[in-house]
Amino acid sequence: MQQQGVEAALVTHLPDVRYLCGFTGSNAALAVTARKAVLFTDGRYIAQAKAEAQGVRVVIAKKSALREACSWLGELAEQASFDSEHTTVAELEGMRSGIDTKRRRKFFASLKVPLVTELRLVKDADELQLMEQAAFLGCQIFEATLPHLESGVTETEIAAGMEFFARSLGAEGMSFETIVASGVRSALPHGRATQAKLPRNGFVTLDFGVILNGYCSDMTRTVYLGKPSAKERATYDAVLDAQQAAVEAVRPGVTCGEVDEAARSVLRKAKLADYFTHSTGHGVGLEIHEQPRIAAGQETVLEPGMVVTIEPGVYMTGKFGIRIEDMVAVTDRAHKVLTPVTKAWIEL
Amino acid sequence: MQQQGVEAALVTHLPDVRYLCGFTGSNAALAVTARKAVLFTDGRYIAQAKAEAQGVRVVIAKKSALREACSWLGELAEQASFDSEHTTVAELEGMRSGIDTKRRRKFFASLKVPLVTELRLVKDADELQLMEQAAFLGCQIFEATLPHLESGVTETEIAAGMEFFARSLGAEGMSFETIVASGVRSALPHGRATQAKLPRNGFVTLDFGVILNGYCSDMTRTVYLGKPSAKERATYDAVLDAQQAAVEAVRPGVTCGEVDEAARSVLRKAKLADYFTHSTGHGVGLEIHEQPRIAAGQETVLEPGMVVTIEPGVYMTGKFGIRIEDMVAVTDRAHKVLTPVTKAWIEL
Repeated sequence: MQQQGVEAALVTHLPDVRYLCGFTGSNAALAVTARKAVLFTDGRYIAQAKAEAQGVRVVIAKKSALREACSWLGELAEQASFDSEHTTVAELEGMRSGIDTKRRRKFFASLKVPLVTELRLVKDADELQLMEQAAFLGCQIFEATLPHLESGVTETEIAAGMEFFARSLGAEGMSFETIVASGVRSALPHGRATQAKLPRNGFVTLDFGVILNGYCSDMTRTVYLGKPSAKERATYDAVLDAQQAAVEAVRPGVTCGEVDEAARSVLRKAKLADYFTHSTGHGVGLEIHEQPRIAAGQETVLEPGMVVTIEPGVYMTGKFGIRIEDMVAVTDRAHKVLTPVTKAWIEL
Repeated sequence: MQQQGVEAALVTHLPDVRYLCGFTGSNAALAVTARKAVLFTDGRYIAQAKAEAQGVRVVIAKKSALREACSWLGELAEQASFDSEHTTVAELEGMRSGIDTKRRRKFFASLKVPLVTELRLVKDADELQLMEQAAFLGCQIFEATLPHLESGVTETEIAAGMEFFARSLGAEGMSFETIVASGVRSALPHGRATQAKLPRNGFVTLDFGVILNGYCSDMTRTVYLGKPSAKERATYDAVLDAQQAAVEAVRPGVTCGEVDEAARSVLRKAKLADYFTHSTGHGVGLEIHEQPRIAAGQETVLEPGMVVTIEPGVYMTGKFGIRIEDMVAVTDRAHKVLTPVTKAWIEL
C-alpha cells in the first residue's frame, strides 16, 4: 500500500480476501489501513470466520458487510483503493453511499493494477508446493482415465469418473467444467462433456482441473481412438512441437507475448496458424484464470514464481481438433513443468 | 425494451445471453436494437456459436468482443442500457472507449432493474419443466445417498458419491460446492464437505444442487446418525415447522418479506430466532442465486412462475445445526414443491 501511495484499501474479490487472511466464505469485505485490518461478513459465517480468518478483526454485519466496511473506512481514511476489475458499477454506488456526501465522489480510487492482483502474480514457496500437488493430482486423474477411454462410452461417463476420482483423492471440486470433446466435437475448444459417445476413429480431448487446498490445476491431453489419418497424425505432431517450443520459451525476463509467438510461429510454418484461434495460455492460482495472459503482444515480463498454462491448439471445424496443455512455473533460471505426464502420441 | 423506454441494450451477463439466444460460451456480448440482435464472441467459439445461437447474427471479434459490440451499438443508437449489477467498473470504462468521445459519458444508462433480470424472474412452462427435472434429480441423489451415511465415512466421500451419481444421470455439474456438514460442523451454514468423518451421534446436513440442461436445483436435508438428545430432536421439529409454514405461505400476491416472516415467527415462538442467522431463501433458475430474495422486509410480490428456495435453519455454534430446504414454484393459485422427497425425521 505504501509503494502505491495508498492510505487504505477495500478488498472484496473473494480469492483476494482468501489470499490475504484465509477466510473462504461467500460474502466478505476486507477493510485495510496501515494499522488495522477488519473482515466484514454476515451471520452465516460466525463460526467459520473465527476458525479461518487470521491477522484480522472479524465483524459480523447486521445488514450489508460491504456497506459496513465502507463506513468503517470512511471514518479512518480520506481515500481508499478498490478493485475496479471485480467491483460492479452497482456495488460502487452502494459503497459510495456508505461515505459522507461531501467526500463520496472521490473516496474510492482505482489503481492501474489492483493491489492484490499484483501480489498474487508471483507465488511463494508454500503456494508453489500446493500448486504442484494440485497439478500432480491432475496427472493421476489423466492416467487413471486412459483405460476407460473406449469407443461407445459417453463423454459424460468419462467426466463423471474423472470427477469422482478427483474427489476421492481429496479435491474440493473441479476448477472448471470438465471438457471431454470427442470426434468432431474435439474441434470445439470449449467442448464440455455431453452425452456424445466416443468414436471408433477420432480424437478425444480431455481438458480439466481440480481445486486442491484452494489452488487450481489445469491440463489438457488429446489422445486418439482407432487408426488416425496421416493428416491427423501430422497435425498432432505440429501442435506438440508448438506446445514444446512455448514451454521452452518460459523463463525469467521473457515477455508473455514472446512465449505466445514461440507457439504461434511453429504453427505458422506448418500452415496451421489460422486454426489456432485463441491465446497460448494464462496465469493460474487460487483462480483458474489469473494474470498474466500469454497472448500476442502482451508485454508482461515473466518472473520466478509465476505459474502459467501453455495450451496451443488446432481446430478444424467439422473435422477434428487437438490441444495440449501444461502448467508451467517460472523458476530462477528457466521453468518447471508441473504436469509432467506424457504428451507423446497415444493411440488406444 | 419499449416498456422501459430503451432504444438499445447491451447484454453481457452470460446467463442472460444464454437466456436470450441460447449461446453458452464463456465470452459473449449481445447487442440488441429494436430491429437487430448481434452476438459478439471470440475465435474459440466459431462452431459452438453457429450451433447454439438462435435469432441473432454472430460476429467473431478479432480483439475484444465487448469492445466491438459497443462500437456497433454506438453507430446505431444514441443510448443503450447495460446491466450495472454485472458490469465491473473497469468493463464500463472499456465499453465507453468504444463510443465516440462526445457521447461517451452518457451513452450507457443503467436501469433500476436490469432488463433480463426482470424477464428471468418469471419462468415459462418450458423452463418450469426443466427446473422440475433438475429438482427431481436432486431428490434421487438424496435417496441414493441415504444408505451410505454412516459413522466413519468422510464428508468428502459422501460428496464424491453424490456428484458421481449426478453426473451419471446426466447433470452437467453441481450448481454449487456440495455441502456435507456433519456433527459440530452442521452448525456451519456453509460447511462444504471436508475430510471430517461422520459422527456416531450427530446431524448430517446435505445441501446440494445439480445443473441439468442449464438449470440449477437446490435442496437441503438434515438427518441424524445415532441417538439424538431431546433438544436436538425438538429443534429439528421447530425448523421443520418453520420451513413448512414458509412453504405454505408461498402463493401469488404475497410479498417475499411475508414468506420470510412465516418461517421466522415460528422460530421466534420456539425461542430459536436468534440462531436463524440468514434469510429464508432466494430465487433459482439458470443461476443458483437469482431474484427474488426471500428475506425480512423484501417487498417483491410473488407471481406465478417464480421459483424460490425455502430454507430456514438453526445453528448452535460448537454444538449442532439443522437446515431444511425445498425448491418451490409459485403456481396460479398457490405453489408446487419441486423437491417432494421426505422431510420427516430420519434416524440412521
